[in-house]
Amino acid sequence: MHQTTGVAIIGAGPAGLLLGHILGQAGVPFTILERSSREHVLGRIRAGVLEQGSVDILAELGLDARLRERGLTHHGIYLQFERQRHHVDFQELVGRTVTVYGQQALVADLLAEHERLGSRIVFEAEDVEPVGIAGKRPEVIYTKDGEVHELACDFVVGADGYHGICRQRVPAGDLQVFERSYPFGWLGILADVPPSTDDLIYALHADGFGMHSMRSLEVSRLYVQVGPDESIDAWSDARIWDALQTRLGVDGWELQEGPITEKSITPMRSFVVSTMSSGRMFLAGDAGHIVPPTGAKGLNSAIADVAMLGRALLDHRAGDSTGLDRYSDRALARQWKVQHFSQWMTEMLHVHHEVPDASARAFRYRSQVGQLEYVTGSEHAMRSLAEQYAGLPF
Amino acid sequence: MHQTTGVAIIGAGPAGLLLGHILGQAGVPFTILERSSREHVLGRIRAGVLEQGSVDILAELGLDARLRERGLTHHGIYLQFERQRHHVDFQELVGRTVTVYGQQALVADLLAEHERLGSRIVFEAEDVEPVGIAGKRPEVIYTKDGEVHELACDFVVGADGYHGICRQRVPAGDLQVFERSYPFGWLGILADVPPSTDDLIYALHADGFGMHSMRSLEVSRLYVQVGPDESIDAWSDARIWDALQTRLGVDGWELQEGPITEKSITPMRSFVVSTMSSGRMFLAGDAGHIVPPTGAKGLNSAIADVAMLGRALLDHRAGDSTGLDRYSDRALARQWKVQHFSQWMTEMLHVHHEVPDASARAFRYRSQVGQLEYVTGSEHAMRSLAEQYAGLPF
Repeated sequence: MHQTTGVAIIGAGPAGLLLGHILGQAGVPFTILERSSREHVLGRIRAGVLEQGSVDILAELGLDARLRERGLTHHGIYLQFERQRHHVDFQELVGRTVTVYGQQALVADLLAEHERLGSRIVFEAEDVEPVGIAGKRPEVIYTKDGEVHELACDFVVGADGYHGICRQRVPAGDLQVFERSYPFGWLGILADVPPSTDDLIYALHADGFGMHSMRSLEVSRLYVQVGPDESIDAWSDARIWDALQTRLGVDGWELQEGPITEKSITPMRSFVVSTMSSGRMFLAGDAGHIVPPTGAKGLNSAIADVAMLGRALLDHRAGDSTGLDRYSDRALARQWKVQHFSQWMTEMLHVHHEVPDASARAFRYRSQVGQLEYVTGSEHAMRSLAEQYAGLPF
Repeated sequence: MHQTTGVAIIGAGPAGLLLGHILGQAGVPFTILERSSREHVLGRIRAGVLEQGSVDILAELGLDARLRERGLTHHGIYLQFERQRHHVDFQELVGRTVTVYGQQALVADLLAEHERLGSRIVFEAEDVEPVGIAGKRPEVIYTKDGEVHELACDFVVGADGYHGICRQRVPAGDLQVFERSYPFGWLGILADVPPSTDDLIYALHADGFGMHSMRSLEVSRLYVQVGPDESIDAWSDARIWDALQTRLGVDGWELQEGPITEKSITPMRSFVVSTMSSGRMFLAGDAGHIVPPTGAKGLNSAIADVAMLGRALLDHRAGDSTGLDRYSDRALARQWKVQHFSQWMTEMLHVHHEVPDASARAFRYRSQVGQLEYVTGSEHAMRSLAEQYAGLPF
């Protein structure tokens, strides 16, 4: 079947869904193609911290009703080391805040609004294939319920994640990949217990990194650093709580435990492409870059991408294509700063157990303590952390 | 021969000589023992940037006459990458400056003043050996002109550098060592040519780090990153200038070349002891810690140590020993911050040519460019750099 749209968006994650709203509100026709089912999309548990800029764009688009109601405004974070906890107050330092709100909830909000508006979203679209992106009239071919469709469009947006097809369709030679893997993984849990902290706690402990985050006033999200290849089977609930108690413990504070409802291990890596555009196809979010989760930048980078790309697509319709021409360079320039910040937070807070030489291993740990003592003692360093955590401008 | 003194200082480098002045001006008897000759001490070429705090203490002690006359006050540094040069103005950012003045000149000043005062300094003291440091009345045994001397004292200060005897005399088990080596070396030259820049230039280039420093208005000091095990024989003068021209080059600026009067390669490493004191012996400067040179912190750390130690020794004579009790912890707490800064500057500006995987190697380089774009674009980050470069409080 032949169809036509303005922008074919591949992927119904937060990037694709948000871009749809940006375009839709300006009257630009779009179609979202998603290989997974609606239920799968709604069930994916991911990040949970929104930068000020991410919240602002959702508010501008009028997509923040539930976010305002249920999101938790956080004025800062805690940095913990040597059993001392230090507050870094973003509000006070740079006049900005972050909002704790699960990506899952955001996706649900964006999707509900699309459904209310009757947006065209095709779930379980199989064998999605962008073609003719070098020309003036690309198409996306896909199969739905056994029938092959050809979707003609002005532009293709690859918001289809790290494993998506779009990046693979950039002509060989046009796209280089930059990668770094870390010798750490994050074991993350969701637990039905009110958070034991008001702001997120990032802790360096000799055993490894520990973190106390949250999803709501009733649900805690906690993490411990593990090896990148560890099996979740080796981590009983009791062992996880033990590790959390040790790594997050400070005198006069108690970590409340509760039933663990979800647990998994994610390896950590950095990944960036050399270009976010190819002809009439543009990449956004995880399709173009992955960060280690320590700085909470994955979801926010995807939002930053589509904020820039959305504006550029609207400008193009108004006759100005400089935004599209510059999209890749601008998105990547911001992304490399974000990559550095994510790496910086990661290296400051994780323990390099894998370093074979004991003296070199101890050197790293002590120099991280020195770094944390400096950062938590310097207003300039805290402001630098705060402006990056609360979010660089789009 | 038996002798007596208040403080036996081992080592006539800047740390030992400065401590002598601090003690001498307060009327505390001291003796400085140095294994090298006076000529050798005066000939050692080392660092050349003094923090604001280092200049201040020299001024307080009235040791800054020549420094004021010949030192070059610098208001900041340049950070360069991708053929763009950015000025980081310390004066404007944190109201502090640094002073370019060769360690060699500082040593000459401190020594000349000691000689004017008739201070007791023994050069070419052989087989120096601190004994009885765990007790109340330590001694330093040494040989001079074939004669063995026993110097009884209240305290021993090991300002005898990385290869010195004092650190080795801390009882086994009391002292742990933390070390990190870097896959880089610095090839440094002195050239008889006026500097082509007003402030120091630190440059990241795909070929490796490059730096333009200076000794005076007539003498330039320049560095290029090389492998840690490279031979100086592989670097002709022409090759060195070529590398400098490439790495420091920006449009509209010219690097003046001149006769190279000195060239050498230094490997880079970090080294810190777990304690700077043992009974009645205290370590200061390179005896206790080594930094990679990128942040210009070696000489300044030594000055910070003896500033703290000098005050503590004077307090002790006035009946308050808390300064001596806390000296090691305080010096090391400052040192670990300095270690982190030195490491941060080093990693931001050097190229990891040794990483085998091309994508991982390119990732590192691009993330350094992202870091430099962030740092040079953020007032908070620049203030943080400035306060550390111009010097943390003693």
